[in-house]
Amino acid sequence: MSKKLTIGIFGFGVVGQGLYDIIKTKNLNLEIKKFVIKNADKKRTLPAELFTTDPDAILNDPEINTVVELIDDADAAFEITKRALSSGKNVVSANKKMIATHLEELTEIQQKYGTSLLYEGAVCGSIPIIRNLEEYYDNELLHSVSGIFNGSSNYILSKIFNENQSYAEALKKAQDLGFAETDPILDVGGFDPKFKLTIVASHAYGLFLDPDTILNLGIDKLSDADVRYAKEKNLKIKLIPFAKEINNSEVVLYVLPKFISKDNILYNVENENNGVLVKAAFADEQFFYGKGAGGHPTGSAVLSDITALRYDYRYEYKKHLTEKELKYSTNYELKVYFRYQNDDILDNINFSTISERYYSEDTKYVIGTIELKEIISKRVLINADGNFIAEI
Amino acid sequence: MSKKLTIGIFGFGVVGQGLYDIIKTKNLNLEIKKFVIKNADKKRTLPAELFTTDPDAILNDPEINTVVELIDDADAAFEITKRALSSGKNVVSANKKMIATHLEELTEIQQKYGTSLLYEGAVCGSIPIIRNLEEYYDNELLHSVSGIFNGSSNYILSKIFNENQSYAEALKKAQDLGFAETDPILDVGGFDPKFKLTIVASHAYGLFLDPDTILNLGIDKLSDADVRYAKEKNLKIKLIPFAKEINNSEVVLYVLPKFISKDNILYNVENENNGVLVKAAFADEQFFYGKGAGGHPTGSAVLSDITALRYDYRYEYKKHLTEKELKYSTNYELKVYFRYQNDDILDNINFSTISERYYSEDTKYVIGTIELKEIISKRVLINADGNFIAEI
Repeated sequence: MSKKLTIGIFGFGVVGQGLYDIIKTKNLNLEIKKFVIKNADKKRTLPAELFTTDPDAILNDPEINTVVELIDDADAAFEITKRALSSGKNVVSANKKMIATHLEELTEIQQKYGTSLLYEGAVCGSIPIIRNLEEYYDNELLHSVSGIFNGSSNYILSKIFNENQSYAEALKKAQDLGFAETDPILDVGGFDPKFKLTIVASHAYGLFLDPDTILNLGIDKLSDADVRYAKEKNLKIKLIPFAKEINNSEVVLYVLPKFISKDNILYNVENENNGVLVKAAFADEQFFYGKGAGGHPTGSAVLSDITALRYDYRYEYKKHLTEKELKYSTNYELKVYFRYQNDDILDNINFSTISERYYSEDTKYVIGTIELKEIISKRVLINADGNFIAEI
Repeated sequence: MSKKLTIGIFGFGVVGQGLYDIIKTKNLNLEIKKFVIKNADKKRTLPAELFTTDPDAILNDPEINTVVELIDDADAAFEITKRALSSGKNVVSANKKMIATHLEELTEIQQKYGTSLLYEGAVCGSIPIIRNLEEYYDNELLHSVSGIFNGSSNYILSKIFNENQSYAEALKKAQDLGFAETDPILDVGGFDPKFKLTIVASHAYGLFLDPDTILNLGIDKLSDADVRYAKEKNLKIKLIPFAKEINNSEVVLYVLPKFISKDNILYNVENENNGVLVKAAFADEQFFYGKGAGGHPTGSAVLSDITALRYDYRYEYKKHLTEKELKYSTNYELKVYFRYQNDDILDNINFSTISERYYSEDTKYVIGTIELKEIISKRVLINADGNFIAEI
């Protein structure tokens, strides 16, 4: 029943190695013919003839019918993916930024050339959320999708809340362990979970959005005062990407820190783990939990995609292509905690209501409601040093 | 792309009504042509011409290409399913007992007639565990699958542990709410989760087993002493179906009460909710959580199966049909807590080791290790009134 796959892989980092580890334990109907790598001089654990620095060795090889793209550079990944899909090769990718940014064009290319692009590994590692949104919840009325999509920032928050570390200590530890980059802003600033949210929203709601239009604020301005406030109230702070249908016709999306109470299932998602919470009209509350990153978990998701290609599996993008079009909206009121340094900032930000106001020598905050579009337009001010905002 | 489904439904109970509620909100390429019901006199919310008591009105109608079987009686359900599959109709069923008991024959019939039988709704309601085992974890080395598969007994345990109710009170409440049958032994005795475990094991390990050969002991003998013991140690008792690969060649399966600590993700699965915990070599620990029963959650799973049939989806049973055969084994040692009434019982049960022994006026227990096959052969004695066993 299954078709033989001859595979070319771009990249041999953590995920590429993880994928190779898994494949070699299995007797699958597939062959890895070539790896294209950037640095020819690096020592490799596999025979040298498997490696080349020339992309054409994969892209121009008619025998290779499946391209696995596992490189960091989103622009280069996009060029590779476009060329492969346009020349009749199916592609598996784990590059969330590339996919989130170019999803509309990539969908058109797939349709034009009858090829398939799969990317389960790009969103929450081993958790099969895309496949389930595509296949299983394809007829569900989805009220919302949210969760913990970024292992690095969640690891930092776990250290802060469970081991009383400071933000700086926890970040350093995450970097030492390789969970966070030297420039960690992609993770702690909420960009990485935003790319994943953009992809999730396309499969949940059929919305193809430019990630730049979606709000992301992160945990990089979190202070001891914010943590103390949360702990006094038995809450934790988590970095939460959130997509929700409102009014039957619009969808709001954003990534913000959020105060979470014990009765929220995300409260117990700790360290580098990820969790996805789906609220649906009929299936009710569904929760998926697993390792969000790492060579083996992500490699396992990539392999699931590869083996699905043996049966010519493809995403149908039904909600985008055939159903009523939902619109992206920023007309949505949030209840927030906003800690600030300078009093005059409150004159420059329009809160709809302010229900609590606190002053002390060290810290000042308000709790109130604010429109999402107001946060977006004042995001630089809101996220300036000395300030921190979180949904509450 | 999709094929039009003309549907005949057997049964119009909670799930049938739930399914109908969902379908009517959607513009799907399907038509419900007929319901076959047992009691013609009951008042229905839909036009009378949709209902009949004659099974042939569905089974002999060549226009109906899809049969949805939602009746309680497992024997009648099997006859309907066999006839439908053999006459070229695809079937969706939520009858766990019927499927667990006849899976091998049903698989052969599907292969012989090229028809498809789907049953996601039979296992843990809305949680898409069968689809994910089939599709997503099809190449994974699965260390174990366990969880909370039975909402009624979990509801009772939640009342006991969180609200200090007695077993009898909690059972009565579950019955009043319709969560448990008048004869609740299917649920609290662990039969229902065993049927689900049997189905899960077939997709996880390719093992088609007679459920009668699998051990199930339940929570029906739970006493206040057992609850007190658990609480003193900050543990909860949950009813856990468990399947695990051992030695690379054998699988053990059983359903037993188990003491669960806070760091186990199943600890927080409360009330009528279900959770499935999958441990895999590469994806690592994966957890699925959701509503395990009820008209809408199960109806939503049934609808996912129905709409998958529009694209001719079928389970491949790859692990059963093509991979190395794993064998069912009962050579497996468990650590258990065993509370007993009469001292002489210990002369009749072979514990491999006994590490703790407790006596008081009210209660006596041992903690020790015992072979699974020993529990199976002494199950009547072990489960006699006054005794209670749980894995610890």
